[in-house]
Amino acid sequence: MARPLEELFAARGCAVVGASRNPQKAGHQILANMVAAGYDRGLYPVNPGGEEILGFASYASVADIPGRVELAILASPAASTPAVVDDLRRRMDERGDLLGVVCSAAGYAEVGTAEGRAHQELLASFCAEAGVRLVGPNCVGIIDTAACVDTTFIAGIVHAPGGISLASQSGALGAWLLMDWSATPAGRVGFRRFITVGNMADVDIIEGIETLGADEGTRVLGLYVEGSPAARRLVEAAGVAARRKPVLALKVGRSEEGARAAKSHTGSLAGTDALYEGAFQQVGVQRVRSPRELSDAMRAFDALPLPRGGRVFILTQAGGPGIFCVDELSAAGNLAPAAVSAKTKAALRAAAPPIASICEPEGHADITAAATAAQHVDCLEAVLRDDGVDAVVFITVATLFLDLEEMGRSMLARMAALRAEGIDKPVYPVILSGNWVMPCRRILEEGGLPTWDGPDRAVRVLSLMTERAAVEGRRP
Amino acid sequence: MARPLEELFAARGCAVVGASRNPQKAGHQILANMVAAGYDRGLYPVNPGGEEILGFASYASVADIPGRVELAILASPAASTPAVVDDLRRRMDERGDLLGVVCSAAGYAEVGTAEGRAHQELLASFCAEAGVRLVGPNCVGIIDTAACVDTTFIAGIVHAPGGISLASQSGALGAWLLMDWSATPAGRVGFRRFITVGNMADVDIIEGIETLGADEGTRVLGLYVEGSPAARRLVEAAGVAARRKPVLALKVGRSEEGARAAKSHTGSLAGTDALYEGAFQQVGVQRVRSPRELSDAMRAFDALPLPRGGRVFILTQAGGPGIFCVDELSAAGNLAPAAVSAKTKAALRAAAPPIASICEPEGHADITAAATAAQHVDCLEAVLRDDGVDAVVFITVATLFLDLEEMGRSMLARMAALRAEGIDKPVYPVILSGNWVMPCRRILEEGGLPTWDGPDRAVRVLSLMTERAAVEGRRP
Repeated sequence: MARPLEELFAARGCAVVGASRNPQKAGHQILANMVAAGYDRGLYPVNPGGEEILGFASYASVADIPGRVELAILASPAASTPAVVDDLRRRMDERGDLLGVVCSAAGYAEVGTAEGRAHQELLASFCAEAGVRLVGPNCVGIIDTAACVDTTFIAGIVHAPGGISLASQSGALGAWLLMDWSATPAGRVGFRRFITVGNMADVDIIEGIETLGADEGTRVLGLYVEGSPAARRLVEAAGVAARRKPVLALKVGRSEEGARAAKSHTGSLAGTDALYEGAFQQVGVQRVRSPRELSDAMRAFDALPLPRGGRVFILTQAGGPGIFCVDELSAAGNLAPAAVSAKTKAALRAAAPPIASICEPEGHADITAAATAAQHVDCLEAVLRDDGVDAVVFITVATLFLDLEEMGRSMLARMAALRAEGIDKPVYPVILSGNWVMPCRRILEEGGLPTWDGPDRAVRVLSLMTERAAVEGRRP
Repeated sequence: MARPLEELFAARGCAVVGASRNPQKAGHQILANMVAAGYDRGLYPVNPGGEEILGFASYASVADIPGRVELAILASPAASTPAVVDDLRRRMDERGDLLGVVCSAAGYAEVGTAEGRAHQELLASFCAEAGVRLVGPNCVGIIDTAACVDTTFIAGIVHAPGGISLASQSGALGAWLLMDWSATPAGRVGFRRFITVGNMADVDIIEGIETLGADEGTRVLGLYVEGSPAARRLVEAAGVAARRKPVLALKVGRSEEGARAAKSHTGSLAGTDALYEGAFQQVGVQRVRSPRELSDAMRAFDALPLPRGGRVFILTQAGGPGIFCVDELSAAGNLAPAAVSAKTKAALRAAAPPIASICEPEGHADITAAATAAQHVDCLEAVLRDDGVDAVVFITVATLFLDLEEMGRSMLARMAALRAEGIDKPVYPVILSGNWVMPCRRILEEGGLPTWDGPDRAVRVLSLMTERAAVEGRRP
């Protein structure tokens, strides 16, 4: 039986084959990413030139490395595969310490040539015979922020710890999200693991799902799926994971043309999309509609408590954006305006400026641009205290008169105080807009509360979280 | 007959009643915004303290200003309305030069109190009797970048000239978009005019639409609509505008709850949403689904030529994001993959790296992460030259190996060369992602080409532009 993928994250000693001093080469960035991730269990550039790279002595062959090498990352061209495999074989014959290979290079089976297929077959059969796991080829790599591993060549990743993991059949899709996270208000989104599987010569998307599903550190699992010859097993694996944690799937190939493009990309048979749709739903996997939605949902699920139900209060100081939010809420399907008690309405009236519009309609208060930071926070507390409220969408359009940073700090403090009392409900701050509001959004996000640049994004993730709460509630 | 709203933009001499030295007051920011907009036809702070504000001498009353005053902006509390109206009346009696009043203050009829209604009635009846137009009260103001007017108190606006205008029944909604535009890659979006109408005591949303529809400088008109007691006239006015230019409407109050919230906001009867839906479609007004979509569409319509049809080529170097885009294209309804000629396919094969996947399926080329900047641009040229291609979605996920800035500069140069040959088609660059790609996006946007952070946003605006092209094509 093959050793578990899990072991690769803990690998002691890592060789980077094809390491380079040229910062525009993958073999340079991989080394830089391992350093940035904090890997300290032995890094060994492998380069025929024997030059020092990023301060690390390099070796002419993997077989020459004196220390333990459990992981080898291959960034040299596909044409060098026979020579690289010879070196790897020599390593295994002499030291036998390799557990896994991550092959980042492209130019293998995905190209469709006899040569590409032969190189992949050579690499894969060596690994199979040697009992070494193979991720790729033609993949972007794997990351584990807790184990301080980053075998990818994506630039600009911030290795912040968190509970989000992603298994992806597209390296670019994963790179997109990871790069996006560097541009959030706090400049980072905490995450746990990232697995891309490329051509799936050994480790496939299903094993990626199983591994992350079983991983204790993964609190929410995101999937980018093109398809699999074993669609049923894929859905089952995702379903097993979904019994333990939220699983959000972006499945492409919805259209006939998209399915053809997927086939040409990773050779995946996309299968009838409607089958995935129904099967995912049956096993509690939630389908998202875009990479942005996948990212939004993963962030929210990791950071916020699940709502107990779908009764939502919209607290706004901006008329138009608030009304737009009411429409979005109505369209969500599983959300409804929270009808608060007379006591809460009185508390809102007492806390808000006199010109505020309270609960007309129910579940909505427009406290107007006259509201101060303190009034915002007092009103938020009033609705959070109401037993009829499961979640709050909090919409603010910056004005000169409102001290947004003070508001952000006070919100965090007040919510922490309420949590200490046992009141812990998800709040979705929509802080509008642009550069002007970044300091406030940064305060909130550094305090653990994701912020949103439109009520629609907030309502969509709230709807997904409410759906998840219902799934968990139905369980025996 | 009332003088046209149009005249207010050209006003010579502007008094800011309630001007303040305190930067957190609207009466300060309005003055600052007029200065930032470049207004140089006479600015007069009115403040009982008589203090100098932002270097301008201030006056105790509008009536005391020695120079010409065609526009008065009211930022003093609603309670001061009787005194302000007395001053305005004295001005008209003595000088008779006022053409318009913009009342930014809140606390009028929207509050629902007898006092609020009385103050609004007092202000409105003075204006009506004196032949002075009134914008507001309870509005954010008006902007004209060409006439160097900005009566709003929105902070952080960049007054860049452009062809986009917006008429809005929500000041906050408009402020949201204007603030957003400061956070685009180039740090600005050119626009022409912005009109918020607040309580519509005189100038209503319909007149806003008529004015911007007739305005030569407005190339694309965006609307935020809650409703109107004269729904039929509103739709007709939008339809008249739509015969001259693209008109994009975000109409809220889609849901019953949303309609109630709209009524409570500006007292608008939202009307049956389905009636607006059908009527807008009949008169060629295009409905958008969110503020983000409104902003995206306005930007694209202003910057890009309309496609001749819906035949789209997806040029990507990233598998997953490309397949997602194929799905989005299929779902759009009015777009289809562009089947290019054998000659174009040969040109793509010659220009792209050997491992590229060309036209499998049709209308899609994945030139892979191995593609250089020059290869990207050569492939773009090949598809733009094909008569079967109406538009191109161009998707790039940053890699170390790709010089994105060089790619951006070359794209602009190549497209300019093609335009000189008469080949002018819309291109939608989706450059992913985060801070890492900002320099490239900045180059493209400063060169006049909007960029997108997801294929879905690009496809949606392309779909709207294709719809518009069809509307214009059907005209006699």
